[in-house]
Amino acid sequence: MHKKLFIPGPVEVSEDVLLKMATPMIGHRSKDASILQKNISDKLKIVFNTKEEILLSTSSGSGLMEGAVRSCTKKRAAIFSIGAFGKKWYEIAKCNGVAADLYEFQWGEILKPEFVDEILKTGKYDLITITHNETSTGIMNPVEEISKVVKKYPDIVWCLDTVSSMAGTRIDVDKLGVDICVTSSQKALGLPPGIAVCSFSTKAIERAKTVENRGFYFDLLKLHEAIIKRNYQYPSTPSISHMYALDYALDKMLEEGMENRFKRHIEMAKYVRNWAEKYFDIFGDKKHLSNTVTVVKNTREISIADLNKALGERGFTLANGYGKIKDKTFRIAHMGDCSLDDIKEIIANINDILDLK
Amino acid sequence: MHKKLFIPGPVEVSEDVLLKMATPMIGHRSKDASILQKNISDKLKIVFNTKEEILLSTSSGSGLMEGAVRSCTKKRAAIFSIGAFGKKWYEIAKCNGVAADLYEFQWGEILKPEFVDEILKTGKYDLITITHNETSTGIMNPVEEISKVVKKYPDIVWCLDTVSSMAGTRIDVDKLGVDICVTSSQKALGLPPGIAVCSFSTKAIERAKTVENRGFYFDLLKLHEAIIKRNYQYPSTPSISHMYALDYALDKMLEEGMENRFKRHIEMAKYVRNWAEKYFDIFGDKKHLSNTVTVVKNTREISIADLNKALGERGFTLANGYGKIKDKTFRIAHMGDCSLDDIKEIIANINDILDLK
Repeated sequence: MHKKLFIPGPVEVSEDVLLKMATPMIGHRSKDASILQKNISDKLKIVFNTKEEILLSTSSGSGLMEGAVRSCTKKRAAIFSIGAFGKKWYEIAKCNGVAADLYEFQWGEILKPEFVDEILKTGKYDLITITHNETSTGIMNPVEEISKVVKKYPDIVWCLDTVSSMAGTRIDVDKLGVDICVTSSQKALGLPPGIAVCSFSTKAIERAKTVENRGFYFDLLKLHEAIIKRNYQYPSTPSISHMYALDYALDKMLEEGMENRFKRHIEMAKYVRNWAEKYFDIFGDKKHLSNTVTVVKNTREISIADLNKALGERGFTLANGYGKIKDKTFRIAHMGDCSLDDIKEIIANINDILDLK
Repeated sequence: MHKKLFIPGPVEVSEDVLLKMATPMIGHRSKDASILQKNISDKLKIVFNTKEEILLSTSSGSGLMEGAVRSCTKKRAAIFSIGAFGKKWYEIAKCNGVAADLYEFQWGEILKPEFVDEILKTGKYDLITITHNETSTGIMNPVEEISKVVKKYPDIVWCLDTVSSMAGTRIDVDKLGVDICVTSSQKALGLPPGIAVCSFSTKAIERAKTVENRGFYFDLLKLHEAIIKRNYQYPSTPSISHMYALDYALDKMLEEGMENRFKRHIEMAKYVRNWAEKYFDIFGDKKHLSNTVTVVKNTREISIADLNKALGERGFTLANGYGKIKDKTFRIAHMGDCSLDDIKEIIANINDILDLK
């Protein structure tokens, strides 16, 4: 029996989107492939709110994160982390011999804009990485406020991980001044995992030109040059199946309307939060909760494995807490093509299993 | 109208395999995901003729080529090239600051075993890259003879690109002594593009342990450690859709029987070669022709663009020559799930269009 996924990625994928994954192949050097990629880019520019070019990578989001840090750090990177995925940027930088410092906050906290200011004031850095929506803690960083600080430092290339938020909540890439905004397919975009996309600003392009040893597959400058010179074709063969599914999903998204989509995500988030507060509690800073995933504090000390097993028998899966807050928390994702009815259904089943009244 | 692909990747994918791409999602940290990956690895070991572990990467084959050269060159790499894809290894090495020398042969020639011996005798190298089946020239290197030479040098990590040959012709990875054998999904495996796989020998593992700055996403050692320690789960979210399709395609393949599969490929190759010799000519060294793609010399100086346009109207696509032999040659791929009847069909259409009798 298929179990409906309420984990923060891969998300449950609609049947019509799944079927697009079965589209017959075309050559990746054909005109049709150029048109397909150009269409995807144009639609993603609307979702990202950017006029910059969009790069596609057949990989997970981590691949483009690696590309961003490796291609665009000339001096030193400041890695701001509020959870497991924030810290991942640091691991990536270290593995590539990129000079970087890690600034970690307690899990559940946000990144304070004034702290960013303090660090950038040192003049030591020319690239920063921030996680917009921390999937491990359910916290969404105040990027509007952070943006005001970052704008004071025109030499900074700003990399923003929106892997679990893009298309689930409004992100104004150009207005914020984000240079490389990374997301991947299996979260709020509502697709199977397998491709990642990012915006790539003029500032980032100019920076990359000064950086040596950018690698091959994730060299963002090479990807950018290829789509410009080769009419939206990539140096390596991309996942055409994902491109068809993404193109279709973006049409659906724009038909729903981005504002309606964000409203739907907020409604789902509110429903889960209200329920969590009634029967459990919510992890972390309640003023900055994620619209796409809720991390529930396991105040009742239930066995999450047992709950998931019982849910599994009914055709649902949620996620245990991540890393050091495993078992102390559990996570319910509400993103992508998930509806409020879907959320009500899993919550009703949890209530029934745990006998919550 | 869908055009049946006779280009050397992406190949035409069978409808049943395509449908597996539409399988509903599972969590990539679930037991089911571990079982799926373990099954794929076990079956691929049969296809590769290896007892070593198989690594899967959500990327094109170039990604794993990058991983191989970057993870396992400690001293210096010797890149042997007989065409465009051989040279790609060199570009990859250079982009990563890996010390490497390029040894190029004329397009259409093979790599001579005695030349490999001469180069390895210098003692300068600890890694070599060889293309088994050069997709740009239609030449298949004599890896059995080359293997005898390479075995004289126990410090050499041998990387073999079998992107367009694995599962289309017999490759005995362990017997040959290949350390990292790379292939990708969209060629003779008969899947859509999007994943790549490689074998990873104990010698390669030990070498990687001595190499710093192996990167993140394509660090083969990290991938290997992950599947060992995490029960066949990868550090980053993989393309589950491709994994389902690959698992299914491998079942079909083993049911057909590998020897039958290779026979089918030889039959198709012979048919195309006979036709090419009758009406055109074949490019390159005729003693070492590829079993998966035939590069036809355009001795009649036809317009390949026009031929492909006319074929397109009938629902077929072949490939122009690659790079510097574009228009001077054209390519017909005969690999994956393609049948002799499919080949006869496109050839009959070419005969009809060009009025060949």
